[in-house]
Amino acid sequence: MTTHQYIDAHRERFLEELFSLLRTPSVSTDPARKDDTHYCATQVQEYLLKAGMDEVSLYPTAGHPIVYAEKIIDPALPTVLVYGHYDVQPAAPLEQWESAPFEPVIKKTALHPEGAIFARGATDDKGQMFIHVKAVEAMIQTGNLPCNVKFMIEGEEEIGSPNLTPFIQQYHEMLAADVILVSDTSLLANDVPSITVGLRGLSYLDVKVTAASKDMHSGTYGAGVANPINTLCEMVAKLKDERKHITIPGFYDDVVFPSDEVRDMIRNAPFDAAAKMEGPGLFGLEGEEGYHFYERTGILPSLDCNGIWGGFMEKGSKTIIPAVANAKISMRLVSQQNHEKAAQQFADYFKSLAPDTVRVEVTPHHGGNPYVTPTDTVEYQAASAAMEESFGRVPVPMYGGGSIPIIAAFKEILKIETILMGFGLDSDGLHSPNEHFGVVNFFKGIETVPLFFRAYASRKAGA
Amino acid sequence: MTTHQYIDAHRERFLEELFSLLRTPSVSTDPARKDDTHYCATQVQEYLLKAGMDEVSLYPTAGHPIVYAEKIIDPALPTVLVYGHYDVQPAAPLEQWESAPFEPVIKKTALHPEGAIFARGATDDKGQMFIHVKAVEAMIQTGNLPCNVKFMIEGEEEIGSPNLTPFIQQYHEMLAADVILVSDTSLLANDVPSITVGLRGLSYLDVKVTAASKDMHSGTYGAGVANPINTLCEMVAKLKDERKHITIPGFYDDVVFPSDEVRDMIRNAPFDAAAKMEGPGLFGLEGEEGYHFYERTGILPSLDCNGIWGGFMEKGSKTIIPAVANAKISMRLVSQQNHEKAAQQFADYFKSLAPDTVRVEVTPHHGGNPYVTPTDTVEYQAASAAMEESFGRVPVPMYGGGSIPIIAAFKEILKIETILMGFGLDSDGLHSPNEHFGVVNFFKGIETVPLFFRAYASRKAGA
Repeated sequence: MTTHQYIDAHRERFLEELFSLLRTPSVSTDPARKDDTHYCATQVQEYLLKAGMDEVSLYPTAGHPIVYAEKIIDPALPTVLVYGHYDVQPAAPLEQWESAPFEPVIKKTALHPEGAIFARGATDDKGQMFIHVKAVEAMIQTGNLPCNVKFMIEGEEEIGSPNLTPFIQQYHEMLAADVILVSDTSLLANDVPSITVGLRGLSYLDVKVTAASKDMHSGTYGAGVANPINTLCEMVAKLKDERKHITIPGFYDDVVFPSDEVRDMIRNAPFDAAAKMEGPGLFGLEGEEGYHFYERTGILPSLDCNGIWGGFMEKGSKTIIPAVANAKISMRLVSQQNHEKAAQQFADYFKSLAPDTVRVEVTPHHGGNPYVTPTDTVEYQAASAAMEESFGRVPVPMYGGGSIPIIAAFKEILKIETILMGFGLDSDGLHSPNEHFGVVNFFKGIETVPLFFRAYASRKAGA
Repeated sequence: MTTHQYIDAHRERFLEELFSLLRTPSVSTDPARKDDTHYCATQVQEYLLKAGMDEVSLYPTAGHPIVYAEKIIDPALPTVLVYGHYDVQPAAPLEQWESAPFEPVIKKTALHPEGAIFARGATDDKGQMFIHVKAVEAMIQTGNLPCNVKFMIEGEEEIGSPNLTPFIQQYHEMLAADVILVSDTSLLANDVPSITVGLRGLSYLDVKVTAASKDMHSGTYGAGVANPINTLCEMVAKLKDERKHITIPGFYDDVVFPSDEVRDMIRNAPFDAAAKMEGPGLFGLEGEEGYHFYERTGILPSLDCNGIWGGFMEKGSKTIIPAVANAKISMRLVSQQNHEKAAQQFADYFKSLAPDTVRVEVTPHHGGNPYVTPTDTVEYQAASAAMEESFGRVPVPMYGGGSIPIIAAFKEILKIETILMGFGLDSDGLHSPNEHFGVVNFFKGIETVPLFFRAYASRKAGA
């Protein structure tokens, strides 16, 4: 029996098992869901055992446990380490769900005419993580596993993976592998396969501009003193030039663009501006000239105010010049940029923009480094070949705009590159009400993963 | 008996009477104080009767009553109309008062070594308004009233005088006068007399910048869409140039500066920058180059953000690009500027600054026109002569930065100019805890007002 035949023969069971995972409200941030979250870890443990994995264990942490498993068929063969997470975002706002978030149902949608599984975690990440459990089961049970495989499935991804870095530091020998495989990103479209080769890093800071110790009367003082809101606005405005290029000195020093060939693929990927605007109800797209939307959000860094506040914010009018103005500012980082260096560059420059009539405080919040998957490797070529075989089209190496800081930590601590081979769609409602995952996407994933294992093992053997 | 001798003989009683007014918590904005506020009007009515005024009446309004009185000694003589208010600001925050706000006490301070009356309304405006009641009493009772006098004392100044404009429209014949006399402003210092000759107008607007209908993920969209906070900051920054000059086209068209002589007096008035900064805890003073602080806050218009808000404003971090950003922006207007024209100029320019990726709403709030007292008139010369005689020094014609919109309405509706002859100090805690009014200032006012009446009547007779 081939792997493919095995998958075909067990479609209904695979769906039922995924449903059982989706019924467990493993909301990692909710203390009331601590037992549910732990129970979900034991479900993953059980499915890994059933799949034929060895050394299946729960590793307790200060928070939710990490599920680990391995199948070493020959220490001389390469090893794939699968990373995923069994925890989910909160379901709120509940009233916006058309079906109960933890009672999965299959419904057809315009983009999923053959049906999609609606449930919190359907795509992020239970469905995508379970693809690997089922693909590995199919390979093991049919005797087609071509190399070693390890699983590291955590329960705290949605709260920033606070206990994963200490875990990989402690168990770096156990986790030794040749490549990390993750399905926690999206395809460009069901007929446009893509592999995410870039994740942006993040530097997030609070800034505070103080002009006085008390609010002032805008009549008595207006035009004679610094207004911290106007000053903050002027400082923020100077962070980008007319071309939307960030003006922080040295900020782009560590930005290296991908090859022209990769940029051409990104620029030529199918892109529907109207559809991109429709989701959030945008009036237009805007960014640095000379770059495609996918380049702006993928290979360029960004600088955004995430929040701003100060002075009188209620209905009506109050004629004050406030003492203080605040903002939250974050930068998405790319390529070789380092979040600590970027935060320092920002702080130095931002403070330099302040007139001597105000005091400026800059408080870095948290950060993470960008990650770029090299595309000239056996690992990427194997993933690309597997996607091409499965989808009938060479996947686009896409730079995602978001951040998964733990992926950069894998590279820094474990010294292993990651392949981000996702099978969902950006429109599947991740972190939103009515999250769903196409049934076709789920099985396309289960079929593609063994193609990757085979392509990878054979290329490594040939290398 | 001279007016002066009468005043000297009744010092204790004048203070006791003022204390009785100050004991009435006539907080016009507080519905729970409606009866107290009305009672205060009857107290003023009684003191005007005692002073010897005729036609003393309470005019009911949709809100608190207006006290009116007149003493027409000869229709051929000029008439002075005294305007003041018996209502006060709320006393909150109570815990910051060192004595109860409605239990007046006399305590010495550094600036008032001979004692100051501590109570809400001590200077704004019960104490200053009562100066006129007592000065007129002294003139009437000693047979020294040299011209006609009318009183219009309202109870809604602290809530924007909503019923005074209809009142003066309805009773403009009854209110006919040659000059309006108001004590609701400050002296530069007890040894530096000044007359306020300019009040700035006000235009107050809400602005809203919308980029989308929903908040967006700052990773997926960052650098590819307009961020309404960054956009708002960039628009606000463009409202002034590097010199702090407001860039709204046509904004300064109706600004005419006072004569070089008056500007010299303003620039040469005693000014203590350190003391000016100390009150609100400022780090420095800032404004358009080439202008003195008193010119910046008096004869120049201002543009200030009074509030700003948008996006994530709580502790921690949320990686969104918000859909919307808001600000409250007000302009203080001077000279011949009109608040409706300024609001329109602002709205047109502000909207023109917006990229086509956002929508901008500008909502004017309320406004008032600036007022300038001409200094080349008999009225001003009489006031200046009275202050000089009383203080031994020519008063500085000062441009105050604040707004009393009703003064411009007096000019527009009654066609009468106003003399703003205040006797308190800016440091007396107006609208703040521990409001007070120097005992010396109170009596200096009562002594100066008859000097004004005499100087004015004789100048008008000679004219």
